[in-house]
Amino acid sequence: MKLDETHDPALKSWVESANAPGCEFPIQNLPFGIFRRKGRNEAPRGGVAIGEQILDLAALGVRTGPTLNALAASGRPAQRKLRRALSRALREKSAQRKRLSRHLVPMRQAELLLPVAIGDYSDFYTGIHHATNIGRILRPDNPLLPNYKWVPIGYHGRGSSIVVSGTPIRRPRGQLKPADAPAPVYAPSKRLDYEVELGFIAGTGNRLGRPIPIGDALEHVFGAVLLNDWSARDVQAWEYQPLGPFLAKSFATTISPWIVTMDALEPYRCPAFARAAEDPRPLPYLHDDDDQREGGFTIEVEMHLRTSKMTQPARLSCASFRDSYWTVAQLLAHQTSNGCNLQPGDLVASGTLSGASADSLGSLMELTLAGKNPFALSSGETRAFLEDGDEVIERGRCAHDGYATIGFGEATGRILPAHAQ
Amino acid sequence: MKLDETHDPALKSWVESANAPGCEFPIQNLPFGIFRRKGRNEAPRGGVAIGEQILDLAALGVRTGPTLNALAASGRPAQRKLRRALSRALREKSAQRKRLSRHLVPMRQAELLLPVAIGDYSDFYTGIHHATNIGRILRPDNPLLPNYKWVPIGYHGRGSSIVVSGTPIRRPRGQLKPADAPAPVYAPSKRLDYEVELGFIAGTGNRLGRPIPIGDALEHVFGAVLLNDWSARDVQAWEYQPLGPFLAKSFATTISPWIVTMDALEPYRCPAFARAAEDPRPLPYLHDDDDQREGGFTIEVEMHLRTSKMTQPARLSCASFRDSYWTVAQLLAHQTSNGCNLQPGDLVASGTLSGASADSLGSLMELTLAGKNPFALSSGETRAFLEDGDEVIERGRCAHDGYATIGFGEATGRILPAHAQ
Repeated sequence: MKLDETHDPALKSWVESANAPGCEFPIQNLPFGIFRRKGRNEAPRGGVAIGEQILDLAALGVRTGPTLNALAASGRPAQRKLRRALSRALREKSAQRKRLSRHLVPMRQAELLLPVAIGDYSDFYTGIHHATNIGRILRPDNPLLPNYKWVPIGYHGRGSSIVVSGTPIRRPRGQLKPADAPAPVYAPSKRLDYEVELGFIAGTGNRLGRPIPIGDALEHVFGAVLLNDWSARDVQAWEYQPLGPFLAKSFATTISPWIVTMDALEPYRCPAFARAAEDPRPLPYLHDDDDQREGGFTIEVEMHLRTSKMTQPARLSCASFRDSYWTVAQLLAHQTSNGCNLQPGDLVASGTLSGASADSLGSLMELTLAGKNPFALSSGETRAFLEDGDEVIERGRCAHDGYATIGFGEATGRILPAHAQ
Repeated sequence: MKLDETHDPALKSWVESANAPGCEFPIQNLPFGIFRRKGRNEAPRGGVAIGEQILDLAALGVRTGPTLNALAASGRPAQRKLRRALSRALREKSAQRKRLSRHLVPMRQAELLLPVAIGDYSDFYTGIHHATNIGRILRPDNPLLPNYKWVPIGYHGRGSSIVVSGTPIRRPRGQLKPADAPAPVYAPSKRLDYEVELGFIAGTGNRLGRPIPIGDALEHVFGAVLLNDWSARDVQAWEYQPLGPFLAKSFATTISPWIVTMDALEPYRCPAFARAAEDPRPLPYLHDDDDQREGGFTIEVEMHLRTSKMTQPARLSCASFRDSYWTVAQLLAHQTSNGCNLQPGDLVASGTLSGASADSLGSLMELTLAGKNPFALSSGETRAFLEDGDEVIERGRCAHDGYATIGFGEATGRILPAHAQ
């Protein structure tokens, strides 16, 4: 861990709401986003979350424009310097308080936008419990394929349909073919699902043809967001052979608006996944001693559901990124191991994060065994897959005794009925 | 076909080289690209190819900036208007000759760049002969999967590593695992291949959640380019289950620099693929009577190889896009059928184009039966897959009696040895 003064859990801010117990955005977090004030025809611009407020980055002379790509590209040293400056400026007794308080916007008065223009989006499959659960549905005797423990399995996702938290999700149509039907039909998906994931936003990129060595990989990550990889399971089942998921996923992917920097996550580093003795040691390009020792991150991710008949959401699952089979550094080293270039703002996602227990399953596919075991809700309703009007709320946070809580906010979306054709 | 004065095969240009027999860029073509003069520190800008010259679009008051995305977004009616203006301005006896001739740059003095900033890149699998050939290698008794004739199969590709013709291609490293080896190694690919494809550049996009109806689809296409989907077959074989190709493809994809507009291709429309009586009729969202009648395009695509010992390239294959199982309109209608949004400059590729005959196979995988049948070259060398120093040259053109030839130029790349680790 590389802790400095910005991680000191005793620090308090002159922005009072940041000091409330359990606040997601204390002065130790300082995540970056793009915002504008609601109801005004303002240009979107960069801000940092502090308590229930947003500090306009322009107050510190940082003019981001409408995306954080340039800030992402500036690199970890510059980002650390900005973090330190923000920490000092927002600390109790800061001499800058009076000047900066004019640049605060209450979060409830702000519209939050996509924080970066995402070039490429790739999605991994690093949740070994998820891969095993899904594999067991398809191949009960042989759930994990032979490459799983060698290759960080991933695929390219669709960038254009990534939306920010709060954007309604239109139920997709697609080709559906029940196993016993002679032919497919084009109809609204009946098996709409979510996937609980984390996304990592690339900072500085690499030149095409030049892989990022695993020891350098985290220096190329700007920060993390929550990610919900909406999935139409019936579309997926029919389309995915032999080239993988396509339209089953490309209708929408939701991310949270605040990029929690890798620096803010530093106190929550943990050992990489504890492989079993019989599991293969990662190949050298995926192995780094420091990464094995503290390349994991203890980030709790939860999924909540609120149907239109419920007043309060119900928690469906809670898992931790510490159960990821591969570390963030391994994902980036693998992604670039063939010379593929990352560009600032690219999104690299974890894949579904499930834990080993029944209350940690990160998709309805797993939670209801492909729809066979619907569950009951307090409203008296049952769910196998998502219904129109359902709101799905992903939350994430890091919390340890002795450190400040680092919250991710939310990635939410409500299902709209399919369009009439 | 929607032919107008710009398609008249009798038209000649005052740019003499455009009138040479077999010229790829006659006045009936007028493809768009981004160029700058070599050896000068100029800003890249839009131009149109005419014979052996490039006309700077600024001469017609069109200031594109460094990409053609805004021109793509302007839509087919605006693009047709510009095409008509260019055709008139470049015609023999044009009153604009004197003024415009100052804005010509000889192509050999120009550097051609990527014509658009590509947001998302998706790659289909519409060459049914290719799909059958590859399927036969993997599953001799059952080459085509049950979804093939219903679903235009595709996957998301990597946008960041798309390069323009002439860019050297670094041999990728990756995980290789021969079937009889106990464990994979990370090493330079030994089975480096090309794939002969066409790419289609999106013009105006669609709103997220709003599919493009098949009857409107071609109005959303700006034009076509040659595309070589470089593929590392050994990496692909080990990584691709269950999520499809990833690092086997993402190290590089080459496109040709000139975007041949759909308007220029109008004389080369042809009927859609002739399905067999027992083949399913496309679902309604993929069916349009006009599209069935003339939604195909007769575009010949060839692959040539020149090893470092050869002075002249040898032609390895020639296939036609008219053998594509799905039309361009069907690909776009499918891509957006779940509400996925296309954005101007997005790239939608055909997948490998092979014909039914032995001289029309669009990849070495097919040509050498997965490397089992190497072929001999005039240099005395043999090839199963690509060697370092090999140059691969894709060419494309449309030619019918009674119409002007429409050329695509080239998409070339030479293989560089893998980097030392």
